[in-house]
Amino acid sequence: MNTAFDHESIAATMDVLGKAARAATVGLARCDADQRNEALRQAAAAVRAQTGAILAANAKDMRASEARGLSGAMLDRLSLDRERVESMACGLETVAELPDPVGQVLAEWERPNGLTIQRVSVPLGVIGIIYESRPNVTADAAGLCLKSGNAVILRGGSESFHSSQAIHQCLIAGLSAAGIDPAAVQMVPTTDREAVGYLLSSMAEYLDVLIPRGGKSLIKRVQDEARVPVIGHLEGICHVYVHESADAEMAKEIVLNAKMRRTGICGAAETVLVDQAGARRLLPGIVDALSDAGCEVRGDEAVQAMAPGAVAATEEDWSTEYLDAIISIRIVDDISQAMEHIRQYGSGHTESIVADDDEAAARFLSDVDSAILLHNASTQFADGGEFGMGAEIGIATGRIHARGPVGAEQLTSYKYVVRGSGQTRP
Amino acid sequence: MNTAFDHESIAATMDVLGKAARAATVGLARCDADQRNEALRQAAAAVRAQTGAILAANAKDMRASEARGLSGAMLDRLSLDRERVESMACGLETVAELPDPVGQVLAEWERPNGLTIQRVSVPLGVIGIIYESRPNVTADAAGLCLKSGNAVILRGGSESFHSSQAIHQCLIAGLSAAGIDPAAVQMVPTTDREAVGYLLSSMAEYLDVLIPRGGKSLIKRVQDEARVPVIGHLEGICHVYVHESADAEMAKEIVLNAKMRRTGICGAAETVLVDQAGARRLLPGIVDALSDAGCEVRGDEAVQAMAPGAVAATEEDWSTEYLDAIISIRIVDDISQAMEHIRQYGSGHTESIVADDDEAAARFLSDVDSAILLHNASTQFADGGEFGMGAEIGIATGRIHARGPVGAEQLTSYKYVVRGSGQTRP
Repeated sequence: MNTAFDHESIAATMDVLGKAARAATVGLARCDADQRNEALRQAAAAVRAQTGAILAANAKDMRASEARGLSGAMLDRLSLDRERVESMACGLETVAELPDPVGQVLAEWERPNGLTIQRVSVPLGVIGIIYESRPNVTADAAGLCLKSGNAVILRGGSESFHSSQAIHQCLIAGLSAAGIDPAAVQMVPTTDREAVGYLLSSMAEYLDVLIPRGGKSLIKRVQDEARVPVIGHLEGICHVYVHESADAEMAKEIVLNAKMRRTGICGAAETVLVDQAGARRLLPGIVDALSDAGCEVRGDEAVQAMAPGAVAATEEDWSTEYLDAIISIRIVDDISQAMEHIRQYGSGHTESIVADDDEAAARFLSDVDSAILLHNASTQFADGGEFGMGAEIGIATGRIHARGPVGAEQLTSYKYVVRGSGQTRP
Repeated sequence: MNTAFDHESIAATMDVLGKAARAATVGLARCDADQRNEALRQAAAAVRAQTGAILAANAKDMRASEARGLSGAMLDRLSLDRERVESMACGLETVAELPDPVGQVLAEWERPNGLTIQRVSVPLGVIGIIYESRPNVTADAAGLCLKSGNAVILRGGSESFHSSQAIHQCLIAGLSAAGIDPAAVQMVPTTDREAVGYLLSSMAEYLDVLIPRGGKSLIKRVQDEARVPVIGHLEGICHVYVHESADAEMAKEIVLNAKMRRTGICGAAETVLVDQAGARRLLPGIVDALSDAGCEVRGDEAVQAMAPGAVAATEEDWSTEYLDAIISIRIVDDISQAMEHIRQYGSGHTESIVADDDEAAARFLSDVDSAILLHNASTQFADGGEFGMGAEIGIATGRIHARGPVGAEQLTSYKYVVRGSGQTRP
């Protein structure tokens, strides 16, 4: 399918996808939860049955990417093995077990004139998902969309094209086995970047929302070009603020986990702020633990004075998402300066305060404006699974529609159902 | 203030507004509900005290609009009198009495690892509102934004420029009296259309969401140009579907009210669909009542055969929002054809079914995909006030963030507050 497409045929192809997706929503609206869950379980079974075909397709993608000289981290994200394939299948089954997010009565009240009003959750409609190299996103994202009764158009990265197509075949098999229109989950059949442009700018008629998953340049392109509502996922410049009242051992463990458990996820901490008043007691243990774990520590002058192993942090460090074993540490005057630093350099993703002082914690949780705020816990809990949502498409850092982990519930809208007995408005 | 602005000064002026609004959100976040409600009450008092000045400004707008030959309906929307000014003041006081939409715990749960998670409502941030001739929107929209802790940048219609400025002065007086930064409510100080373009395309840094209120051409411009999330308010092509099981008297009263109570609002019915099987019993009473009330009835051939007063409806009628004493009526085979008609021609705003058959009603309420669905009640209840929301900015027909009446609660986002005791992620 990945043959050359010219302008006109890309437009025509994309319109066909859009129309089919829109048409699929009608059938999806008539499906009950059992049918959607059955499709998810059948898709999981197909993924297991087709493990060989998926791995063969992935080997093709890996060979092409190695030939193009992709970095080790990129290759790792792209590569699949039996375990990763099994984990995709399990993910689909987990999503099938989640409560039905559609048709739920979110609120209900009665008016003095006797009208009863219900706010009832409904699917968003057609979701476009643009992602990069991880082929498992194909199954994860499609699973959540289907769970919430949405049709989805997937546009994966060009490196993972064959892997994603093989996974897509399993999703189609699941839909068909459950009697659902296979157009409920479609993949853009070309790696041409022009198809992304068309998805962003010319499909407002067919798409209700676009969700980009990927690096800065993808997000920027989507923000610049999209003519469709976007649920944004920006970078995570996450902070741990160690208040002067913090328990030293807890602060050390939380910082170490927030940075080093996995350095490549958006909820990994990139900057630590330590109160001046507690720095002598708190900082050395933190820096030693990080260094021992192989993390490069970059600090301001005060940090360098107390921790000779630290190299000098530049202004740029405070707004850098390392996604690596590097951390920046700054000594702050107090909680006000810490919050000001986060306001200035943060990305509104996730921040944690370590403090015994409950008043300081309450102020931080109330006044800092990020999607996720934690007290005495690691920023690496910023994850839909850890929140109990079963799975997530990502962490939304925008303020419209969904903020924080985007799970099946966040992929719904609602409508009002009003019941009367002949009421007319005076 | 309404002097000529060149490109550069429009950009500079708008950036000043944006920066000031963003800065005002910091202060607003620290205000409690009492302070915001006090600002609303003080603004209401200022509106009352400045009635003379507001009416004088309005007279200036009216003279200019009459000279430009604006239509009677436009002039009526623009014109203020003592009663309309008083109703603006009351509106602000009503909003002050509403429950606080900010800081509410929307959901709360505990994880097996002991973390407690709360989803807490927070303001959206900075809202841009673009509206047309009604000057009262200045007070209504600003009141809802302030209630929900948001800063707002208002861009009213050029016809109502002086009226809106006079009302804006009262809002500023209210903010100042309550000790809130007056930049929480700002107005674009020029009627130049280029300022709208700048608001749409160049202020993503300052605006969290744009809400357009107005006619088709404004909405289209916003959808084409906006680089900021939009809460859309499309036209209302609302339907009343009269099922064969309907009570004839109820059907007549609901259709009459849905069309004729006020013809110029978006919740007014534009099309009636009547079941073939009940048409002889139901249709004549409906058509007579509409005709007696001065409504022009346009019907398909079957309607014309049964109601000789009806003129022929064309294909265009089914997708026309008359906002006038005109209605289109079609005889349908059954509920399936009625729902198909609504899917094809409706705008996803509001539809009502009149039926004694509860099964038919349940199917209609479940399967029709509009923001508001009613059973045995008039479409004119599509209104935030009638829903008990106190006030509304409009009826959102999009599916993202808010759908249906947009009140103070819909102008909020949320954040997650997670409390732990030293948890790190395994």
